[in-house]
Amino acid sequence: MNINVEFINSFVRSTVHVLKTMAFTEARAGKPYIKTNGEASGDVSGIIGMTGEHEGSMSLSFTAACICAIVSSMFGEPFENINDDVKDAVGELTNMICGDARRELEEKGYLIKGAIPSVVTGNNHHIKHVSNDPVIAIPFATGTGSFVLELSLSA
Amino acid sequence: MNINVEFINSFVRSTVHVLKTMAFTEARAGKPYIKTNGEASGDVSGIIGMTGEHEGSMSLSFTAACICAIVSSMFGEPFENINDDVKDAVGELTNMICGDARRELEEKGYLIKGAIPSVVTGNNHHIKHVSNDPVIAIPFATGTGSFVLELSLSA
Repeated sequence: MNINVEFINSFVRSTVHVLKTMAFTEARAGKPYIKTNGEASGDVSGIIGMTGEHEGSMSLSFTAACICAIVSSMFGEPFENINDDVKDAVGELTNMICGDARRELEEKGYLIKGAIPSVVTGNNHHIKHVSNDPVIAIPFATGTGSFVLELSLSA
Repeated sequence: MNINVEFINSFVRSTVHVLKTMAFTEARAGKPYIKTNGEASGDVSGIIGMTGEHEGSMSLSFTAACICAIVSSMFGEPFENINDDVKDAVGELTNMICGDARRELEEKGYLIKGAIPSVVTGNNHHIKHVSNDPVIAIPFATGTGSFVLELSLSA
């Protein structure tokens, strides 16, 4: 089971960076762990596939309270439920976090392309990455709730 | 708003072909339409991103009854709820339908790569393709329920 720690580090860094610069939100990364069972769950998730020399997928899963606080901070107006604006913001954050990590990895010689993201809504839905590679889960804490990033990317 | 009809035709053909050969299930395609609002909903969905000369994403959304009948036929044993085997089968069908369509399109000169699929579960979840390209929905009917394929792929 091969895991490239540089991949994990880049996605952690880009998540903190994008949330700080785009949504004025401080996110603290918890300890990454390998998922052995269970699936990411949340009320809204962004999912994006990756191709190229390394293939995989990344998801970001938020509770409703956590994403509404992030998007309220992002736009400077209150959002109280997961409407179309919030969904679009989740898609945009997914795109930017994946793109920022891929740019850093490209500078290190890893060529990875990002696909078009999808946004899933539905109370307490679950996401399973269909891959033979390990799935790494990284929990993040913000002042208004937690979210989880999951990454499965071939080493 | 550009739509390449060859893309739609290839995904319709591959869906019918893969379900017939892998799951011994006859699927009849309804009339494709452009989604102007609303989102695909289902109890289980497979999602796959695409990159290359044409970028986008494809989803397949099934009701629980429909996918359980398909997977029961696929494995020759009864499946009554969406367990891990059913989720894996949705991931596999998503991969094969996308791969079969991409192979046909490659023969016509369209180079498209497929990412790793994800499988979403959760009663009545919704999926939104985050793209500036139109989203085409194609309803399919089987003897045991209906499902929908959604495709957003840049022309």
